Amino acid sequence: MHAYRTHTCADLTAADVGDTIRLSGWVHRVRDHGGVLFIDLRDHYGMTQVICDPDSPVFAQVEAVRAEWCIRIDGTVKARAESLVNPKLPTGEIEVYARDIEVLGHASELPLQVFGDQEYPEETRLRYRYLDLRREKMQANMMLRSDVVASMRRRMWDAKFREFQTPIITASSPEGARDFLVPSRLHPGKFYALPQAPQQFKQLLMVSGFDRYFQIAPCFRDEDPRADRSPTDFYQLDMEMSFVTQQDVFDTIQPVLAGVFKEFGGGKVVDQDWPQISYKDAALWYGSDKPDLRNPIKMQVVSDHFAGSGFAIFAKLLEQEGTEIRAIPAPTGGSRKFCDRMNAFAQKEGLPGMGYIFWRDQGDGMEAAGPLAKNIGPERTEAIRQQLGLGVGDAAFFLGGKPKTFEAVAGRARNAIGLELGLTDLNRFAFAWIVDFPIYEKDAETGKIDFEHNPFSMPQGGMEALQGDPLEVLGYQYDLSCNGYELVSGAIRNHKPEVMFKAFEIAGYGEEEVRKRFGGLVNAFQYGAPPHGGCAAGIDRIVMLLAEESNIREVILFPMNQRAEDLMMNAPSDPTSDQLMELGLRVIPREH
Amino acid sequence: MHAYRTHTCADLTAADVGDTIRLSGWVHRVRDHGGVLFIDLRDHYGMTQVICDPDSPVFAQVEAVRAEWCIRIDGTVKARAESLVNPKLPTGEIEVYARDIEVLGHASELPLQVFGDQEYPEETRLRYRYLDLRREKMQANMMLRSDVVASMRRRMWDAKFREFQTPIITASSPEGARDFLVPSRLHPGKFYALPQAPQQFKQLLMVSGFDRYFQIAPCFRDEDPRADRSPTDFYQLDMEMSFVTQQDVFDTIQPVLAGVFKEFGGGKVVDQDWPQISYKDAALWYGSDKPDLRNPIKMQVVSDHFAGSGFAIFAKLLEQEGTEIRAIPAPTGGSRKFCDRMNAFAQKEGLPGMGYIFWRDQGDGMEAAGPLAKNIGPERTEAIRQQLGLGVGDAAFFLGGKPKTFEAVAGRARNAIGLELGLTDLNRFAFAWIVDFPIYEKDAETGKIDFEHNPFSMPQGGMEALQGDPLEVLGYQYDLSCNGYELVSGAIRNHKPEVMFKAFEIAGYGEEEVRKRFGGLVNAFQYGAPPHGGCAAGIDRIVMLLAEESNIREVILFPMNQRAEDLMMNAPSDPTSDQLMELGLRVIPREH
Repeated sequence: MHAYRTHTCADLTAADVGDTIRLSGWVHRVRDHGGVLFIDLRDHYGMTQVICDPDSPVFAQVEAVRAEWCIRIDGTVKARAESLVNPKLPTGEIEVYARDIEVLGHASELPLQVFGDQEYPEETRLRYRYLDLRREKMQANMMLRSDVVASMRRRMWDAKFREFQTPIITASSPEGARDFLVPSRLHPGKFYALPQAPQQFKQLLMVSGFDRYFQIAPCFRDEDPRADRSPTDFYQLDMEMSFVTQQDVFDTIQPVLAGVFKEFGGGKVVDQDWPQISYKDAALWYGSDKPDLRNPIKMQVVSDHFAGSGFAIFAKLLEQEGTEIRAIPAPTGGSRKFCDRMNAFAQKEGLPGMGYIFWRDQGDGMEAAGPLAKNIGPERTEAIRQQLGLGVGDAAFFLGGKPKTFEAVAGRARNAIGLELGLTDLNRFAFAWIVDFPIYEKDAETGKIDFEHNPFSMPQGGMEALQGDPLEVLGYQYDLSCNGYELVSGAIRNHKPEVMFKAFEIAGYGEEEVRKRFGGLVNAFQYGAPPHGGCAAGIDRIVMLLAEESNIREVILFPMNQRAEDLMMNAPSDPTSDQLMELGLRVIPREH
Repeated sequence: MHAYRTHTCADLTAADVGDTIRLSGWVHRVRDHGGVLFIDLRDHYGMTQVICDPDSPVFAQVEAVRAEWCIRIDGTVKARAESLVNPKLPTGEIEVYARDIEVLGHASELPLQVFGDQEYPEETRLRYRYLDLRREKMQANMMLRSDVVASMRRRMWDAKFREFQTPIITASSPEGARDFLVPSRLHPGKFYALPQAPQQFKQLLMVSGFDRYFQIAPCFRDEDPRADRSPTDFYQLDMEMSFVTQQDVFDTIQPVLAGVFKEFGGGKVVDQDWPQISYKDAALWYGSDKPDLRNPIKMQVVSDHFAGSGFAIFAKLLEQEGTEIRAIPAPTGGSRKFCDRMNAFAQKEGLPGMGYIFWRDQGDGMEAAGPLAKNIGPERTEAIRQQLGLGVGDAAFFLGGKPKTFEAVAGRARNAIGLELGLTDLNRFAFAWIVDFPIYEKDAETGKIDFEHNPFSMPQGGMEALQGDPLEVLGYQYDLSCNGYELVSGAIRNHKPEVMFKAFEIAGYGEEEVRKRFGGLVNAFQYGAPPHGGCAAGIDRIVMLLAEESNIREVILFPMNQRAEDLMMNAPSDPTSDQLMELGLRVIPREH
């Protein structure tokens, strides 16, 4: 007989009745029913009921075990009485009568119960993560994550991609966040950096002639903590292809991700049509570059109806350059109570409020209600209704000013309206490619032109486009949004050195600076660089969506806490003076 | 038509003749045959011959291209004349007549030719790695590596293992080498460490109830450079299982590795019988704990034949305690010339030399030759011959002293003898599990007892064994050797806190020290730890063996040089003073 088990705790069925078997696992729960002991014995695969009565030679030892002890049980498989069969459990037809027991690992008093649904503070959960991970939900989350990653790999292999591992101890690759640095012992005073993404290496792979690369890649960013991101490292499905256009990248990654969502989406609808929406339209229609398309609401410009109208606030606003009035249609939202609540929402978000109109029929035909309707009069109100395609029982909200000042709030109001009115279909994954991002943005305060995303994207129109107004230049740069989250980001890269230098020049970086910061890549582009592009998909976020979790730490095995500490392993910690000496470093004493 | 290609450079055959097609790739070679230009156009997949004569509208542009320019060609597929068909090339039946060309990426003068077999200094190859990687051999090595890793993943999944990613920015995990440290910005003066291996995390996964873990895991060790190891990071196939014995681990990993060697071994024989050899026997028989079993030579103890014999050097030696005489049988090595060369080999390795006997037949029957035979006389000589099973045409070499002083040289002599005599079967992968490693060793100078390998292994005999002579305690610890390389290392772990503390105590570590250094793991073991064990296989080394390379940098995409520098990316480099300030660090000025 095997030293620890002949079966797992999920294996035994009625077919095994009468057999002598051996199981190992954890004591999930012990119950004492009138002197007969019932142990739910749990392992990774399932649960088996073990019974022991005073006739058993090991009754006394079995009586001593406590929750989460790791034990081995030898026993006989018995059929349960008809009335005690548990059809929900694969092993529900049988129980094991204990004839021998070995305690493989004792457990001290538990700081956290594995059995049951008790909530614990996050600090407790992270400090005793090995107990927390034994809980059913966490086991399921981690297995989901592992299966999602495996499925991604299989799908990428099937699409003729090869996985390559790129360096982790390398040079600084400025991508907007802070690098983690690694002091060099062989070169004291010098530092390596951990890659914020394998961006430069994957581009170098394309220059090296590898046609289709992917990697489940660790990325390192020293960012200030936030609930929905890991403060140190996270994983991306990173990919890059040569000799492709933007559409090729879309056509390649869509089946991979749609397949993963279909496989692990728990039966939710996975949209097969992934519209391409320009960054500009997304801002107008959805108030966001990661719109939730499960929500059918699409905002519209309604400035004309307010220009010179009796609603002085908007009429005056529109006299300033660059201002607009936009409407959020709210089908079925036509009640004063709902409209007031949404108005309050906007105020809580820092706006003066949202004007609204709603349409009702109190027995004598359709009537537009709300103060706004009164101010602008029936003709304009009706024109607005017609433009928005609304009717009795519906409402519309209005926001005005320079779009940048209210767009984000409008987007959040749209989300709130969709959810409150039940318009958002929660049983669905809805995707959209956001395209045509501007390459540059102007700093509102300094007026300085800088890159809007990262500097590696090819400008649409190439060199020619860079001769004109930089703020008009769009890039072959794209994001994929899903249910309001940014899942993927990517671009067709700027592989031409002369276009790259020009693009940097516009953002104020001279050739020398560019060579210093991106030397590896820029040099490589001088030796026959192919056109190439790709993208990276955030794995933590995809798993969060699939597991229906809202905290990233629920889908990571051993996450840091929000102060970037690992309480279980005690990191970060003080270095020894020998270590500092070898690295040629001194810690600056902190002021008190 | 697609912007860049309708086919890859490996696609076109006689079936495509007459078609108008588009290819993109690199100019591998240009030849001018009497005014007709021939371009070998290369991409990741293959090579296609492009021709262009003065009748082509783009003759002048085609004439201008140089090696390694990245170009797009539009043209017509033509059948080659029968005599010009190249049967070695998948596209050898056709050529493409160029009608249009676009230069996608120019190339400056090349520091390294992609075409041909010219050798370049390693510094040049690493600085221009993106060119070096375009070469046929490097493309093949990297694809092999990628395929080997993919195959390992598939095989581990098939064996019901799940892959989990463990933290990379974490706590110091002392494993014998130096940690790479990462300064914390949020906690200035404190440091994270990069894991030397996911050892503690994989054990924590077992305590967390995950039954079978694996990972293609990056490992980080700040080691002094050596030709056969990467000075910063390397990858392991890391695995761990719960409720297993040593034999279970062997039975699980053998089919995975044997499968990989079979799949990628280029037709070499892959031994299916993997003997288990104790550490002690391996030292005696092969002079190494990573023996090359392709070599049939097995050393033997022959002390008895020399004790009190006429060979005074050995006879005297044997009067000292702990000494032995060992023989290396050398079938077919029976010539004075060969014996003298091996004797010289031992002298070069720092020994006084190797005595030898060889057997010949000069027409009047078998005769033992060599000075040793004369000294010990015919009876003893014959007894040795019989013990070693040798005959006419064979030889035997002898080494004496305390085994530790000559064992390693004996092992290398065995290798040299096997290779020189053609006894080592080079067309084969031969594996052996080396088992029963001692847990402790005694420092020859200080007499201090310390761990021989790592401190996580379960002592055979458990707590009881630790009560006796520590130097007699063997561990459930094992290595896999293949063709003279250590491929795998692993152990059944010590999962019992009380046994662990005792094991550490013997090596001089108090409970407090253990808690400080391995706190995460030791705490976890107090909450129902299962018996568990596993191993880790070095991926770089496996790929080296399969690719028949002897330098690890031939199987790594972007390796550091031997001074741990990345010349292409310029790492390590000077930090900015802002970065140092944020980390609370100061660089100690170097003395001149």
